Order: sequence, then C-alpha cells, then structure tokens
Amino acid sequence: MGLFAGHGALEQAELDNFGVDWVIHYSFEDVELSQAIQEFRTLIQDLQEAHLQVQVRHGYGPSLLVCIRVPPDLLGNLVHKSRVKDWLHGIIHEFPEGGDYAEAEADTPAEALRSVYHAVTWQKSLGGAGVTPKLGQWKNITAAIPLQDRAANAELLRKWSRTIFLTTEDLDAIRALFGEKVAFYFAFIHCYSCFLIFPAAWGIFSWLYLGPYSVTCAVVTCIWGIVFVEYWKTRELDLSLRWNVRDVGFLKVNRPEWVWDKEIHNPHSGETVRVFSAHRQFFRQLLLIPFATVASVALGTLIIVTFALEILVSEVYNGPMKGYLEFLPTVLFSLSLPSITNLLTEFAKRLTDYENYRTQDQYDLAQTAKTFVMHFITAFLPTLLTAFAYVPFGGKIAPYLDTLREHGLLSANLAREIHIDTSRLQQEVIYLSATAQVLNFGEEIVLPYVKQTLMHKWRDWREGRDSSRHPRRYSQRTDQLLVDAPEEAAFLSRVRDELDADEYNVHDDILEMCVQFGSLALFGVAWPLVSLGFLINNWLELRGDFFKLSLECQRPAPIRADSIGPSLMGLEVLSWLGTLSTAAIVYLYHDGLEEVHLSSLLLTLLLAEWAYVGVRFIVRSGLQRISFISLRREESKRYAMRKRFLEATSGRVSPRAKPKVRFQDRVSVFSSSTDVPGGKEDFLHPGHDGMGRGGRFWSWAPQETADAGVRLIKALNGNMDGSRAGPVKGAKGA
Amino acid sequence: MGLFAGHGALEQAELDNFGVDWVIHYSFEDVELSQAIQEFRTLIQDLQEAHLQVQVRHGYGPSLLVCIRVPPDLLGNLVHKSRVKDWLHGIIHEFPEGGDYAEAEADTPAEALRSVYHAVTWQKSLGGAGVTPKLGQWKNITAAIPLQDRAANAELLRKWSRTIFLTTEDLDAIRALFGEKVAFYFAFIHCYSCFLIFPAAWGIFSWLYLGPYSVTCAVVTCIWGIVFVEYWKTRELDLSLRWNVRDVGFLKVNRPEWVWDKEIHNPHSGETVRVFSAHRQFFRQLLLIPFATVASVALGTLIIVTFALEILVSEVYNGPMKGYLEFLPTVLFSLSLPSITNLLTEFAKRLTDYENYRTQDQYDLAQTAKTFVMHFITAFLPTLLTAFAYVPFGGKIAPYLDTLREHGLLSANLAREIHIDTSRLQQEVIYLSATAQVLNFGEEIVLPYVKQTLMHKWRDWREGRDSSRHPRRYSQRTDQLLVDAPEEAAFLSRVRDELDADEYNVHDDILEMCVQFGSLALFGVAWPLVSLGFLINNWLELRGDFFKLSLECQRPAPIRADSIGPSLMGLEVLSWLGTLSTAAIVYLYHDGLEEVHLSSLLLTLLLAEWAYVGVRFIVRSGLQRISFISLRREESKRYAMRKRFLEATSGRVSPRAKPKVRFQDRVSVFSSSTDVPGGKEDFLHPGHDGMGRGGRFWSWAPQETADAGVRLIKALNGNMDGSRAGPVKGAKGA
Repeated sequence: MGLFAGHGALEQAELDNFGVDWVIHYSFEDVELSQAIQEFRTLIQDLQEAHLQVQVRHGYGPSLLVCIRVPPDLLGNLVHKSRVKDWLHGIIHEFPEGGDYAEAEADTPAEALRSVYHAVTWQKSLGGAGVTPKLGQWKNITAAIPLQDRAANAELLRKWSRTIFLTTEDLDAIRALFGEKVAFYFAFIHCYSCFLIFPAAWGIFSWLYLGPYSVTCAVVTCIWGIVFVEYWKTRELDLSLRWNVRDVGFLKVNRPEWVWDKEIHNPHSGETVRVFSAHRQFFRQLLLIPFATVASVALGTLIIVTFALEILVSEVYNGPMKGYLEFLPTVLFSLSLPSITNLLTEFAKRLTDYENYRTQDQYDLAQTAKTFVMHFITAFLPTLLTAFAYVPFGGKIAPYLDTLREHGLLSANLAREIHIDTSRLQQEVIYLSATAQVLNFGEEIVLPYVKQTLMHKWRDWREGRDSSRHPRRYSQRTDQLLVDAPEEAAFLSRVRDELDADEYNVHDDILEMCVQFGSLALFGVAWPLVSLGFLINNWLELRGDFFKLSLECQRPAPIRADSIGPSLMGLEVLSWLGTLSTAAIVYLYHDGLEEVHLSSLLLTLLLAEWAYVGVRFIVRSGLQRISFISLRREESKRYAMRKRFLEATSGRVSPRAKPKVRFQDRVSVFSSSTDVPGGKEDFLHPGHDGMGRGGRFWSWAPQETADAGVRLIKALNGNMDGSRAGPVKGAKGA
Repeated sequence: MGLFAGHGALEQAELDNFGVDWVIHYSFEDVELSQAIQEFRTLIQDLQEAHLQVQVRHGYGPSLLVCIRVPPDLLGNLVHKSRVKDWLHGIIHEFPEGGDYAEAEADTPAEALRSVYHAVTWQKSLGGAGVTPKLGQWKNITAAIPLQDRAANAELLRKWSRTIFLTTEDLDAIRALFGEKVAFYFAFIHCYSCFLIFPAAWGIFSWLYLGPYSVTCAVVTCIWGIVFVEYWKTRELDLSLRWNVRDVGFLKVNRPEWVWDKEIHNPHSGETVRVFSAHRQFFRQLLLIPFATVASVALGTLIIVTFALEILVSEVYNGPMKGYLEFLPTVLFSLSLPSITNLLTEFAKRLTDYENYRTQDQYDLAQTAKTFVMHFITAFLPTLLTAFAYVPFGGKIAPYLDTLREHGLLSANLAREIHIDTSRLQQEVIYLSATAQVLNFGEEIVLPYVKQTLMHKWRDWREGRDSSRHPRRYSQRTDQLLVDAPEEAAFLSRVRDELDADEYNVHDDILEMCVQFGSLALFGVAWPLVSLGFLINNWLELRGDFFKLSLECQRPAPIRADSIGPSLMGLEVLSWLGTLSTAAIVYLYHDGLEEVHLSSLLLTLLLAEWAYVGVRFIVRSGLQRISFISLRREESKRYAMRKRFLEATSGRVSPRAKPKVRFQDRVSVFSSSTDVPGGKEDFLHPGHDGMGRGGRFWSWAPQETADAGVRLIKALNGNMDGSRAGPVKGAKGA
C-alpha cells in the first residue's frame, strides 16, 4: 500500500513537464559523426517544417533528447481537423463547426496527445513530420513518446488503493490519460474481476459442502463463463459508444510497411483508394494453420517429453540423486522454452509481415492471435496432459515399464513399483491459481521496479564517482554543454528515465487475463477455490498493472480502439473448450476413475457441446437486448442531432422556395429497360393527370361521395334482402 | 410456358388503374343498415380529413369499394416527409433538402405506395386516416390494398419465362413493384437455386460413380450448406445496402395492439418514448420452450403412432384387406393433421400476442419462428424416424412381435415374418425431392388458379342467369346504381376480383424453401440426385410464386425489410442438424448397417460437430470480407456525402469568423473531481502558457536548435570516445 501512497508527496519539480508534449530519443551510438549530424539536421528541419517547436538536450550516453511542443493554435487546429476526419468517417456524429481554420479544445489529454502524435509521425503528405521511430531513415530514433502525467497517475493510484471497485469515471480517467486501447484493458480486467466475485463466493460454498468434481459446480462454472464472455461483448459495445470509438478501425492510416496491389477509383467520393486484395490476404492468413500445427507439435513434443521424463523420475526411478534428477526435466524445459518461443515468435512476426495488414491495429491483432496460440499451448498443455492422459491412463503404462525393467533397461533395484498420484491434477490447479499468480506478479511488476531502482542507484553512484575522480576530464566548453541547468535537472533526468523505460504492451496484459480465464474455465472444477485466488490476485493485478504502466513504462501513444481485440475470440474459444474439459474432468474424476467407458465419455462430451451451444444461444439472445438498448440510445442521440440540424435548416428555406417536382416524371420500374416508351412514366397514374379517361371515374364531387355510398348501401341492402328471400318474393313484388 | 406468355396480350382496359392508388373493401353483411351507414360516413370523413380523394362503387355482395387517390402534390410531400423520417433515423444518409413543404418524386412505385399506405393506415396523430382493416372500429373493412400493376407484372413474367438466371435488376423490379420484403424472398430463392447448381452437378457425378451414402458426397454437401448460409448473409447485407433498408426495423411504427409499460424521457432528443421492458418480454418469450415441447410431443406422438401402425400393417400383418388397411394410418394422420396444426397455430398466435411486440415486423417474425418449429416437425420427423429408428433398430422389435404372437395378440396365421425394408429411407428421400415437390407446386399454384377460374365462370354464369330470369327484379333506380358504367366495367370487375383474392404471405413461401434446404441438408446424402430435383422444381417455383403473387393474390402493401427474417436462423440450425444427420446416416448406412457400435457413432457425431464449428468459422471469416467490402463501399458513399456537405459548409464560413478557443481552457481528466483547483487546466502545459518557468526551457531560438544539437552531438561524441578509451586516454589528454 505504501508503494502506491508514497507518491502522494511528489514535488512540484517532479510534476512539471515544462510544456513538453512529446520527446524523441535520437541515439547515434553506432553512427558516423558526420552522418549523425546530417540525420539530426534533417530531423530538426522536418519537425520545424511541420510547425513544431523543438528544443534539444543530451540524453544518457551518445544520444539526444528532442523535446517537441505543438503551438497552442496549431494544436487546436489539429484537434479540430482530427474531429472533422472522424466526422467524415462516421466515428462521431456531431458536425464540427468552424471551417478549415477553426481551433477546437481537446476533451481529454489523450485526444490532444493523439493530435501531437499524428503531427510527429504521420507522413508529410498527411501534414505530419513523418518521423517514424525505428523505421527506415529514422532507425536511430529509439523512442518517441509523450511524458507521463505524474500528478494524475499518482492521484488515480492513490484513489484505487482505497477502493474495491472502479467506477466508469475511473475508466474515463484512464482513457483521458492513456487512450482507449489501454482503457479497454482496464475495463476488461475490472469487469472480469467483478464477475469473479460470484464464482469465488460459490467456490467457497462448493469447497465446504460439495467438494471437488461436483456436477453442480461444473454447470455453474460453465454457465458463468458463457455469461461473462457474452456480457463483456455488450460492455465493450457500451464503452465504445461512450468513448465515441465505434468502428474506429475503419479510419486508421496505412502502416508505412503496407503494400498495395491495386488502385480502386471510387465513383462516389471521387477518390482513388489503394487496396490489397482480400482473398490474397485470406490465403496468406491460411498459413496460420501450418504455423499453428508446427508450433503446437514443437511445443507439445517438448512438453510431453518433459512431462514423461519428470513422471518417470519421480514415480519410477528410485536411485541416487533422485532429489536433483526430479527437477532436471523441468529445469531443462524452462531453460529451452525462451529460445523456442523466441524462434516461434520471430517466425510468427514474419508471417504477420507477409500477411500485409493495412493498419497497425490489424497487424497487432494478427500477431496477438498467433501469440495466443503459443500461450495457450504452454499454459494449458501440461495440465491437460495431467488431467486427461497421466492420471486416467497412467496406470496403463505400468506394464510397459515392467517390460523395460525385465529387459534390464531399468535396473530393478533402481525402480520402485509404479504409483499414479491421482491428486496431481488438483495440486497443479492449486499451483495455477495461487503460486503461479504470485510468482507472475513478482516477475511482472515487483522485479522490474527493483531492477530499475537498483540501476538508477548504480548510475548515480557511477556518475558521481566519475565526476569526482576526473573533475577536469572534459574541456570547459563540453562540460558546460553537458551539465543540465539547475531548474531543468530534475525534469531532464525524469525524461531520460522515461525514454529508457520499457514499452508498455497492452496485448500481453490482456493475454495474461485470458490465460487466467482459461485456467478457470478448463480446470476450475478440480478445486473450487480457484476463482477466489484469482479474485484476490486481480485486485492487486489491476493496480499493479497501472503502477507498471505509469511508473515503470513509457507512456504509450494514446491509440484508439473499440475492443480488446482478438482476445475476445480467444475468450469464446476458452469458454467452449472449458465446457468440454469440465464435462470430461467431472465424468472422469467424480466417481474416482473406476468406471470409465469410452462411449459414456463421448456421450458426455457430445451433451456438453450441445448444452454449450444451447446455453450460449439463450444467454446471447438475452444479453443482446442490452446491446440493443445501447444502440438505440446511441441512435436516439444521433436522431436528436439530425433533428436539430433539420430544424436549423428548415428555418433557412422559405416555404415559397419549395421546389416543384412534376409528379408524372417518375422513373420506371424497369430502370435499365428500353421497353417502356418515353423512358419515364407516372406508374401510379399511367396516362392520368387528373384528367383523361380516369377523370370521368373521379368525376363525383367530394361532398357527394358519402351520399353516393349511402345510396349504394341501401340499394345493395335491398338487393341482398331480395336475393336472400329468393325468386318467390321477387315475383311477388313484380 | 403458355401460362406465362398468354398474358402478353392484355388489353389496355385490363391495364388501366383509373388513377386509383388504394382500394378499401367495406363489407356490411352482418351489420345493421343504420350502423353501416354511420360507419361508412365516418370512413369517408376520416379519409377526406386526411386530404385523400375518394370514390365509391359497389362490390360483390353487400359490400362497397372505396377507391382512394392521393393528390399528386400531397403524395410528393408524403414521400418527402417519409424520406426526412428515414434520414432522421439514419436509414438513408443523403439529407432530403427542401423544408416542410417540399415534394419529392418517389424512386419506385413501391415507395409511392408505401406513402399511400401510411396515409391510409397510420393513426391520425401521425397524419394518416387511421383506417386499419379488420381491427377495432374498422373490423368490417375486409381488405385495404393497392391494385396490381398488370403490365409490369406480365412483362416480368414474360421475361423470366425465357431466362434461367434473374439479374439484380430483376430483383430491383420486384422491389419496385412489391417492396423489399417480397423482393428479399425472390432474392433468396434465386440465390438458393443458383447455389443448387453445384450440388446438382456433383449429385449426378456421385450418382454415377460414388453411389449413395458416400463419405465424399456427405462432406461436400455439408460444406456446401454452410457456404450457402454464410454467403446468403453477405448477399442479404449487400441487398439491404443497395435498397437503403439496413436497420429499417428501428423505425417501424407501433402496432395498434401493442401495450407499453413505462415511459422513458430521452434527455438527448427531448422526446418521451414508450417502451415495454425488454426482460419482461424475454421471460414471456421463454414460454416458447414449453410450447415447442408440447407441440413436439403432440405432433411427434401422432407421427410415431402413425408410423408404427403403418409399419405394423405393411410389414407384419398379412390378413384380409391389407391393401386398404395399409393406407388407413396415413389417411387418418392426414385428416387429423390440419385440425391439430390449426390448434397449435392458434395457440402460437396467442403466445405471440402475449409476447407483445412493438412492431408488426417483430410480431411476424416471432410468429414465423413458431410456425417454423411445427413445420420442422411435420416435415422431417417421419424421415428422421425412418433413418434413425426404423431401419437401423427395426430388427430389434422382431422378438417383441414374436412375444405378441405367442400370447395370441397377433393371430399367427395373420402375421408373417418381420422384414425390414432397408431401402425405405432412400424411397422417402426420392419422394421428398420429386413427388412431394410436384404435388406441392400443384397444390400451391395450379389448384388455386383452377379454383379461381372456375369460381369466376360460375359467378358470371349465375349473374347472367339471375339477370335473364328476373330482368325487372329491382326498381329502376337501384338498377341504375348497381350497373357499372361501360368504360369502368372491366376495371371494377378486376378490382372486385383482386379484393376477393387471397392475401399473399411471403413467410410461407420462405418457410417452404427452408424446409427444402433442410431436406437436402438432412437427408441429401441418401440419394445424390435430390438437389437436381430441387433445382428443377425451383426454376418453376420462382416463376410460379411470382405468378401467384401477381395474378392470384392481393397486391401486398410494400413493406420494407432488411432480411428474410428468422428463417435465416432456421437455415443455420438446419445446416448444423444437417451435418450431424448426414454424418450419422453415412456411418449407419455406408457399410450396410452390419457393424454399428454406439461409441463409434458418438465419436462420429462429435467429430462432425467439431468439423461443423471449424468449417463454419473458416467460411464465415472468409465471407465476412465480402460483407466488409460492402460496408466499406457504403461507408465511402456516406463519406462522399459528408465531404460534399463539408465543402458546402466551409464555403459559408469565412476564415476570419473562426472562433478563437482559449487553449488553456481544457477540461481536466477528473471531470467529476473537485481536487483540481480552478476546475479546468491546460493539462499538456500546466502552468505554462509559453511563458513562466517553461519559458526558460523553450528560450533557445528555433534556428539555433539544430546548431545546439550538433554541438551536443560533438560534445557527447568526444565524451563517449574518452569514456570508451578509459581514464588513461583522458589522463593523456589532460
């Protein structure tokens, strides 16, 4: 708690950003001096040509800090133009008034920063400076980031350390500071954590009264998972409407790496659009299937071998150094995993490059989808093996081990009798929900913080030593240049630290939550307290992630998004697999693995599958009404906007100025047909313009119509009475 | 062919609609004379108050024809207002210019007629005459319809009788004549028939080389079904965009029967909206589950009993009158089915009434969904029983029959040995795809036509006889009134016939196609030529349905819709069930029913289920790109529209008039917080307005920045060189 609260007493100097909107880190460590000077001059020139104010200071090592400020009137105009663009693409619906030179005030810091981001990174043809870090001519720019708003960050952390639930206003605040993409992650983890309260409470009840592998508990967990995923979709829609980012993906600019294969001239907008053909991309995406297969086989084999070795050593082997040998496979696995994952990630990246996505969003999503597959395998395969191979069928390998023993491959005195540990699944699940979460939190948040603090200490100490040992090492002129002005010193040191910090990758955090949800959905039934562990972890995780984002990482550019992305599909897949896995676990373990029939197991799976489809359909139909209400609310907002516009317009047009449309000039049904003479005709009144033959039909005066009808009624009434009574009566009358 | 072509020679008198836009049929058969006169006067008054021109003529029997014409300028204004409403609700995106009194020309007859329809039926508060046929005070109005456009109908029929494929322009023509709801049906049957070409060709190949129950054939059929359903979704979206009807359901007016339970004041539009709470409706909808259960059990029991009796008689019984007794169960079933279906339909209608839908659309859809369940059971249960109960397990009832025989319940000499007819499934499927289609076509289209023609002949004959037998039955005055003017006679007789005709129910036709698709998906694998039969049938069916719609039925009011409705979900369900059924049939029948294991069957089903989910996912992802392209095209249309508006607006605002926004007046991140002094702050430049402490930081002049940076680069370069070389070099220099 002190970790969070301690930042309440930040000094003013710590908070002051000196009016700097954006900082570029130019590093010339591996560059010739003359080239460095040339590149730097081009950089400054490009920035100044984009009307940005620039100041330069030195960084750590051979690097420069280029501080950028957007002049207020330019920023106002950029914000306005960005809104006009949003309006043109239908992202916002209120027309931004004021013409080309208008200035608008940004609603949030994120909106202002996004305009700054565009001013710095967009191509010159779009009005930016075209400075794209780590790419092409700017490959020596290692970072280009906005500065953290320490006061606001600290305030949010302080507030959250005292509350349990976040409000929608808190999410708005994250959005205002870091943009929608990050805000969606926090909305997700918060929504997920709130949903966890129910299975946590239910888990305590189950643990006390039902025990593990209970059917009731399984059904409740599965339905809960489906409800959560479907509810999150409605929540996502709701937030995307609240934040005006629905369908924002449509408007993103092209990635610089993107290749187009044809130009399409749009007759409506008069613009020429470059596209990459969809089916080519689709066929390229199909490469995901062999990739996923290879990745699964590679990782799967590794995991299975490790698993088998570990089992062999711990359960069968009984010789010397058992204590060490037992851990050997896991250690070897852990050591080789990073390089294998790196290799696969590198390959996945190449595949994603080849798939050639137009926008950075799409690119990120495709890459995340691939990472998802790998995460899934490494996170769940060991437990899946335990649940569905080792425990139920482990007993069946005993005879083979005996065979090995008989053939002397296992020395008899080194091997003991095989013993299948049926509680192993539960142990692993407990590990997943408690130990793994704590370790993960430490690795993700605490360790980097400690590392960072130590590194700062060490640098300070070294610099202090250097300057005290070689006080006159540099010429007087150089010295002066490389010493910060006293009032800037604290600020610049903070800027250097922020540029040195890691990039924040929101996809990783989302994936972590998805894996957690997956553990719960797949194996939660084995130990009912799983969700309680996750709930406690997530209270800390949310705050820890914000701590990481605001104090340990670079402030991310405020990117917009209208969803948590492909992880949503991951959640759906996990809730489906979870249903199957839960059903199978309950069937296998509920009665103690004694009576297992293949056909009953298959029937269980089939019924679980159908139940999943049915329940999801009902839940989705039910929850779609919430989405429907959100959409209606949004629609009525737009309706009101259009109505205001209509009222404003109808005031402008005088009734006398109404255009007189000749009604008979209507087009024909056969718009492309040449059969209709004259091309156009009045199809409701062909040949009749109130006159002509129809004129005779319409000749009765309006006031006569009612009377004529009444006469007809009477006549018909008489007629019918007559006809009803038959010819006899008629004959009488005659 | 002659049936279609014969209408080419329609006389001008046949085509002439005398400028009548709409006809109301007022029948006073069961009404007191004074009440009839009163009701009729109110009707004419209401119509005239809505500014409609009215003429009255007598109908068949005790009834009146009220012919309505909308004056051209009123119609133009109604069309304009309807477009303004569409625009306000976001259905169309081009703003209809021209103020309150503008007149617009309708693009299609359907658009014009829709405005007439609204003028006649909408409540007075909405500007209509409030004349709702068969409802409340207007329960004696038996019909209110537009008149058929004989020329256009005949032209379309003639054109289609000579072509195989319909073009999108043909669909546009149907839409122009009958509105989008009907056009969507024809688009659907056409799209489906085109898709049938592939399985028909493949079916011929399979029939020749693979035979029935082939695995390849099964896989192809299932994938084809999934592709068709997913493709139709994209086609539907495409057409709804083409016809400007996307999300048109949003704007429909309330049904007169609809009940609201609360009023919601909308702060955005300033309007008060009446709603019926969504969850109450949802819970009411859940009653569908018991309804479907009861309906299934009732129909199911009936079908099973019939089936069992028929089997018993045809396969076991061997006594006298076998030839008649064999058909008895089926005849009894066919006789009792209509009353049972009527009962269930009546109950379904009450349920739908209770579910209280706001719009007629929603009501129709809910009712159709229920009909779908019943159709499904009656259409598929007999064949399902044959495929999965009688043929595979029929042999197992033989011992029970023997028991019956032993106990004397079946006299031994009347019963022969049981004999299971394994080809029965194939026979039923052949019946479904050939005989049933022909019978259905006859019943649906030919029979009503013959009936209608005969009835007209009989009426003409009777009237001729009446007038020749009792030439002076009526008084001279009445006679004159009830004799049509010679130039109107043909027209009025046509109007009377059209009012007498049946209503066209598009949902029934859609359902028929869904059932056909279901037969193919569920049982197609048993006889590969099924799709060929369907293809031939559908060529005729499309034209026959249009014939029915244009010559045998009332012209429907041109209702808008953006989909074929709930049948779409029906198609999805059928393609899913089809996959399971096909897999099971192939497993059971492929190797001649000899080696059937329950676990293998279950495994087959499970794999089929997963394959279905996987294939559907891939197909959907692939085809969503088409939707995506449609949506992008639509979006770029809107973009162009907005761009034009922007250009028009920016011309109006002079650059000098730009509003000057003070940049430091931005709102805080903490919009609801009181922590920030002053409430508002410049969050990018807190405390800095270009001056102040930040001013010192920004003090280097712009032109100096580059030079300052270069000096820094050089200084850092020297520094780093020094530090790299270590203190020795530094000491040397010193």
